[in-house]
Amino acid sequence: MTPVDAAELRAAFPVLEQVAYLNAGSDGPVSRQAIAAATTELEHQRDAGRATAHFEHRRELCDTQRCHYAGLLGAAPENVALTTSTSEGIAIALAGLPLAPGDEILCAEGEHPGLLGSLQAARDLRGVSVRFVALSRIADSLGPNTRAVTCAHVAWRTGETAPVEALAALADSGMPVLYDGAQAVGAIPVDVEELGCAIYAGSGQKWLCGPDGTGMLYVASAWLERLEVTRRGYASFSEPSAGIDAPLCDDARRYDTPSLSAEASAFAIAAYELLESFGWDAVHARGDELASELTLRLAERGHAVASRGNTTLVSWHSDEPAAVKTRLADAGIVVRDLPGTDLLRASVGAWNDGHDIDRLLRAVG
Amino acid sequence: MTPVDAAELRAAFPVLEQVAYLNAGSDGPVSRQAIAAATTELEHQRDAGRATAHFEHRRELCDTQRCHYAGLLGAAPENVALTTSTSEGIAIALAGLPLAPGDEILCAEGEHPGLLGSLQAARDLRGVSVRFVALSRIADSLGPNTRAVTCAHVAWRTGETAPVEALAALADSGMPVLYDGAQAVGAIPVDVEELGCAIYAGSGQKWLCGPDGTGMLYVASAWLERLEVTRRGYASFSEPSAGIDAPLCDDARRYDTPSLSAEASAFAIAAYELLESFGWDAVHARGDELASELTLRLAERGHAVASRGNTTLVSWHSDEPAAVKTRLADAGIVVRDLPGTDLLRASVGAWNDGHDIDRLLRAVG
Repeated sequence: MTPVDAAELRAAFPVLEQVAYLNAGSDGPVSRQAIAAATTELEHQRDAGRATAHFEHRRELCDTQRCHYAGLLGAAPENVALTTSTSEGIAIALAGLPLAPGDEILCAEGEHPGLLGSLQAARDLRGVSVRFVALSRIADSLGPNTRAVTCAHVAWRTGETAPVEALAALADSGMPVLYDGAQAVGAIPVDVEELGCAIYAGSGQKWLCGPDGTGMLYVASAWLERLEVTRRGYASFSEPSAGIDAPLCDDARRYDTPSLSAEASAFAIAAYELLESFGWDAVHARGDELASELTLRLAERGHAVASRGNTTLVSWHSDEPAAVKTRLADAGIVVRDLPGTDLLRASVGAWNDGHDIDRLLRAVG
Repeated sequence: MTPVDAAELRAAFPVLEQVAYLNAGSDGPVSRQAIAAATTELEHQRDAGRATAHFEHRRELCDTQRCHYAGLLGAAPENVALTTSTSEGIAIALAGLPLAPGDEILCAEGEHPGLLGSLQAARDLRGVSVRFVALSRIADSLGPNTRAVTCAHVAWRTGETAPVEALAALADSGMPVLYDGAQAVGAIPVDVEELGCAIYAGSGQKWLCGPDGTGMLYVASAWLERLEVTRRGYASFSEPSAGIDAPLCDDARRYDTPSLSAEASAFAIAAYELLESFGWDAVHARGDELASELTLRLAERGHAVASRGNTTLVSWHSDEPAAVKTRLADAGIVVRDLPGTDLLRASVGAWNDGHDIDRLLRAVG
């Protein structure tokens, strides 16, 4: 892997030639390398078909993708399942968690619909109650029936961070802590051992600049046996031909999405390796630095920036968020508004630069 | 849509220039059109980014893909969910079916691990019992506790067809019938109204020549409300921003996989439209005709062909199936062996021709 510098990293993303793309919190920018890798896979399928070698190749790509994700999380590959999204990872975890009617899940306020959907299912289908508290107070708000605690590592609306040390102490006492890491993996350093969490779900298409339809689910070793496998297909089994008594995989592959395409894996791998060639420490540091600069300069101009942590999301209040978003888009600046709030959100990654920030600030006024 | 003839259809699949590709029962051949469509999507993402228009575009592609699948099943689009595979469709259905401990699911013998996995989950996690009977006798084998009946529409090992009329009569009486249509959709005519089934799951990557990671789940209107939505994400809700009480979509979109990529949908759509331009009646008739020819000529040469229906799968017994498969592959003829059996299976589609059949027969001896 040849190291790349900030200018080379930026040059790998054609969209940045025209657009101040500040939207990785939805979907990251897409590199030439990633598209080249996906295209090569597709053309190979067209020309060579999809026979035995194709299925073996897909398995190898999945292994590589899993190793990359695991490396970034500070986990062993055996603890990482491949999913289609953070939401799916959360859904697998919450559906599989041993919970009984009357048990309570404690959740932070303002979480993403991807997490809320799984909580709704737990409430409606399993008789579990759900209580919401402010993210900052979540570790101190357990009740007598709380059996699981869940929140974003980085809040999707504001970039606020979870109280990870207090949650790690909770996890130490045996409480399952489930993180939605959609706005964290690839954006800030993540170390699941340090977090002590039972579950960490992340996205492939946001800060890792991979394809839509990719993601990861970390399951701590202590939870691998206890987290039920509620959906089981060919890929869940170590011997799929053994019939209805086929044994599940020993490791987190038992939770894998049943059919990840070679083109999706190749895209994800190439996207990851580009960022890795810049260096993960550099990716994190540069995102943090640019986001801090944006925060400061927005505040200097009188904008009310939402309370945030050392993350790559910068949200600020606006009288007309939807209209401003459209006006910015027309000027080639991509941010998003957040339905149900008066916030606009800029996602600032290592591929951005001062020029993108300047353009945004000039246009926002 | 310009109609194409058999030669033009065949010419759309480069793999057929070199290889007698008889493997659509695993993964279909891939057309130039499908790869061109996927590549265009990928390049657009690289150059334009993935902002609001990208998400709207993905929704439109999903609509088109859903309409295509629905048309082929004889269903309304409102009854069709997009999945990543037949296995996932089956898993969604079996996890959502109202079943209590002690209830029995009746299943055909020799089903695919994708279906068996979901049955294992129902047995192990919900206390449901599973009983197996021969496919031909399944409609006559109900017991007092049978609450659901499930089988392949076309058996993956042999190409045998389910007793659809007897099962339709059962379904008429209120029994949920769940079909694994992996070897049927695109291969033979399917009409879910005529089948009367509660559930019909199919694959996008086999007889529809779409990408790995695509599939469909038909849910009959009478079952839309009764089939629980055990995994819920952004796409499941009609108003995702409404928090934990967000309402589920009224229609089968509530079961959609959470994140289908534009490149996968575009691939699936272009693959489908190529076959449609040949005509579905012609696709089905030509597959049936070629498979019948292969069956006859294998039998003439003394091979024991497994009992089959008017389908596109032809399986025959072999003393050394794995070795023969490898020998054929070395000669550019792609069939598969079926672990746990002594069978070799040829998948014969409308893109094949007499030359492919001749090559196979010459090599098999």
